[in-house]
Amino acid sequence: MHRRGLLVILSSPSGAGKSTLARRLMTWDPTLRFSVSATTRQPRQGERDGVEYFFKTRDAFEEMVAAGEMLEHAEVFGNLYGTPKGPVEAAMADGRDTLFDIDWQGGQQIRRSSLASDVVSIFILPPSIADLEQRLRTRAQDSDEVIAGRMEKSMTEISHWGEYDYVIINRDVDAAEAELKTILMAERARANRQPGLNAFVRALNTEFDAR
Amino acid sequence: MHRRGLLVILSSPSGAGKSTLARRLMTWDPTLRFSVSATTRQPRQGERDGVEYFFKTRDAFEEMVAAGEMLEHAEVFGNLYGTPKGPVEAAMADGRDTLFDIDWQGGQQIRRSSLASDVVSIFILPPSIADLEQRLRTRAQDSDEVIAGRMEKSMTEISHWGEYDYVIINRDVDAAEAELKTILMAERARANRQPGLNAFVRALNTEFDAR
Repeated sequence: MHRRGLLVILSSPSGAGKSTLARRLMTWDPTLRFSVSATTRQPRQGERDGVEYFFKTRDAFEEMVAAGEMLEHAEVFGNLYGTPKGPVEAAMADGRDTLFDIDWQGGQQIRRSSLASDVVSIFILPPSIADLEQRLRTRAQDSDEVIAGRMEKSMTEISHWGEYDYVIINRDVDAAEAELKTILMAERARANRQPGLNAFVRALNTEFDAR
Repeated sequence: MHRRGLLVILSSPSGAGKSTLARRLMTWDPTLRFSVSATTRQPRQGERDGVEYFFKTRDAFEEMVAAGEMLEHAEVFGNLYGTPKGPVEAAMADGRDTLFDIDWQGGQQIRRSSLASDVVSIFILPPSIADLEQRLRTRAQDSDEVIAGRMEKSMTEISHWGEYDYVIINRDVDAAEAELKTILMAERARANRQPGLNAFVRALNTEFDAR
């Protein structure tokens, strides 16, 4: 019997260090599969189809939604974003865990989907608003107006922390990484996530009877 | 707001290394409180009231059961064993986690009690029956008949592994100890186990509004 893969959802306001943590987790466990989103927005310089995103026309995207092939989707600033279901189900069947770097809307849709029982959701909080804003300003040379818009969006994202299974305050990236690994290891130790246990206990019984 | 303590239930057949693991966990985290059971059996040489057990007369024990003062209880080989509720509730209110070294019957009763939502249950499996039997034989100079009885009881205990949240196969005591700590750390990172988060997020909102 196969072990079914977990769906590990990582959400946070942008600037809270989520992408760094996701990258570190992927390095620590190369069997983790990173979920690639589909989008209708134009590829930016250097972005490759199937790596950063699956780039789709609006028609193709909407057909996938209509056919139930999107695990979750949402429209953000006029573009559609979503998670194609096929690769996720293939990884699960294969016993591989999938990591999702998505916002609260995507998290909510996946938690309400038919795959809900295999979801582990983690929210990353920034240590302070000053820290969050500084990271947003350092990262890109955006106008004050753009930064202000991002900060408003961050506060909406933060307001959904209570919907997540686990919460990590990212005061120190090494400590946050350790906490993230701890959560993943513990979730994998759950009785219902170790299907090999059935066979193991059967073998104990056989050994007992054969003495 | 106080953090409410967890009830950490550790069960296993005797000889699977549970007591060693419990002791190591207590050394690692001295804030953990070890749940002392009450019993009607006679104290053995060196056993102190309130340390190894609370020693009770059958009348006193039954009065506590009737008054709803036992979280769980059972009769084993003619003696009553149980967990007094008072100290557990006091520790929980104090934000301290309690460690229970109890069998599947006790575990089941606590999981069905009013404190169910604060329970984390972990089952320890032996690597093999040969290993289990050898530990039972090494530990005490018991007759083959006594050992056989213990082994039968162990198999009953093992048959309940599926009722537990987590399962650890004790192939190596250091690895099993690390897994146990991982589970405890992850459970403490759950959103609903960190009540300080409410205040933390309120402070983030205040900081945002005050900019």
